Amino acid sequence: MTTLRAEKDHDVPGGYEPFPPPLAPAEPAPRRSPAEDARTLLLHEKVATLATISDDGSPWASLVVFGILDDGSPALLVSTLAEHGRNLIRDQRASLMVAAPVRGNDPLASGRVTVLGTVSRPTGEREVAAREACLERMVAGKFFVGFRDFSLWVLDVERVRWVGGYGVMGSDSAAAYAAAEPDPTAPSADRAIDHLNEDHGDALLLIGQRLAGYPDATAAKCTAIDRYGVDIQLTTPRGKAPARVGFAEPVAAPDGLRAATVALTQRARAAAEAEAS
Amino acid sequence: MTTLRAEKDHDVPGGYEPFPPPLAPAEPAPRRSPAEDARTLLLHEKVATLATISDDGSPWASLVVFGILDDGSPALLVSTLAEHGRNLIRDQRASLMVAAPVRGNDPLASGRVTVLGTVSRPTGEREVAAREACLERMVAGKFFVGFRDFSLWVLDVERVRWVGGYGVMGSDSAAAYAAAEPDPTAPSADRAIDHLNEDHGDALLLIGQRLAGYPDATAAKCTAIDRYGVDIQLTTPRGKAPARVGFAEPVAAPDGLRAATVALTQRARAAAEAEAS
Repeated sequence: MTTLRAEKDHDVPGGYEPFPPPLAPAEPAPRRSPAEDARTLLLHEKVATLATISDDGSPWASLVVFGILDDGSPALLVSTLAEHGRNLIRDQRASLMVAAPVRGNDPLASGRVTVLGTVSRPTGEREVAAREACLERMVAGKFFVGFRDFSLWVLDVERVRWVGGYGVMGSDSAAAYAAAEPDPTAPSADRAIDHLNEDHGDALLLIGQRLAGYPDATAAKCTAIDRYGVDIQLTTPRGKAPARVGFAEPVAAPDGLRAATVALTQRARAAAEAEAS
Repeated sequence: MTTLRAEKDHDVPGGYEPFPPPLAPAEPAPRRSPAEDARTLLLHEKVATLATISDDGSPWASLVVFGILDDGSPALLVSTLAEHGRNLIRDQRASLMVAAPVRGNDPLASGRVTVLGTVSRPTGEREVAAREACLERMVAGKFFVGFRDFSLWVLDVERVRWVGGYGVMGSDSAAAYAAAEPDPTAPSADRAIDHLNEDHGDALLLIGQRLAGYPDATAAKCTAIDRYGVDIQLTTPRGKAPARVGFAEPVAAPDGLRAATVALTQRARAAAEAEAS
């Protein structure tokens, strides 16, 4: 995984620093791997864009609702009346792009993932599982799953590309994707973010000041949370800065975000008291 | 444009009729052409999925925020740090998929469009217009438009594919796309749908009973509206049925939907009175 810095990685005329840097050393903050992000997004989002190869060799983007198998493989139920359905019969290479719901006003600041691979027709138990996975998410699927123009496909993921927002991106292999676990806290993340911003702005600010290296921060807003830590946007006299602080250990329980953020707040208080004494 | 009927166009074992048919003859209801739908969606949505060809020949789906030129051509500002940016330098074939905001619980029942073509670097006035079009929609674009790893591209649309929902789809040519006008009423459609459903359920029902061929309808809900007419979901003792009723003439003014639906209601009342007398 790479976090790009504009001045180093972009080809910038005359240099460029988008954000004020931390003033104090901050602990390294772990985050989900590209494979973990992909497993998490594909488990919880049901709409994707499928890219296939058209009959003249052009790349073809189309909307799909996909199912997800226990091993993380996406399943598709598509008709040959649709261009993508005809494309897959001709050329089995495909990629799926899944985007996280956009918080705020800039879709490019949000996370999204592309999984690329090859589709094949599932058989036996895998066919049953793929059909069930598709029907679970396709509202009207039960009406057309028996139509003979519909085919079931499973994408064998060979490569993962993750973009977390501006200058935050990474890639992972098929093996990493297969081994990665979806984040168990993902379904409660939105609620946790709202709760932190509505009721615990002081705690977020203290975390930003004492654990993220921004002692001059004057306001803090949570922008993302996951099993490994919390992303905070800090307001400082030097401008706004994105920061990330990790939990002491990864959250394992789906409802564990509250306890983890309470522990983080206690660590920030302890750091403030140690400095004051 | 084609409206598919399951029993005729799907390869259905044993036949299948998803909706109760009209009991009385209904007037033909015009709707936007695929090209008009594409021009309208691309003008009003700013997020798309781009499909490009990857270095190994695979189709690559990625998220983009695009600009739109006056002639309907989409403009892209992408970095070579992103896979799609490197792909376009190697192979200029690309397609963009843009989806309408989903109303209700089924994304596959919503409209979406794919425009396919070839990108090229704009020059002269077209370059200026493309840059402005991208910056207008890319929240942070002004920070990186000068970075030398970013390139500006314009997609020359060669083919349009539109899917309006289940079994409603069509294609259009480059010439049709160039000649088509975006629907001027699109920005007020959401508000109009809400207003009709909240305050004018009786009028919608009368329209469904008298003009759409469903005299047995007992409830009506507007699901879409555009310059040519209104889509209504009707509840009947025989099940739910989608119906469409056209305005007497296309609405030309951005704020003309109210007058057009009032006129439609008067036509339905006149038809009811003619039958009663």
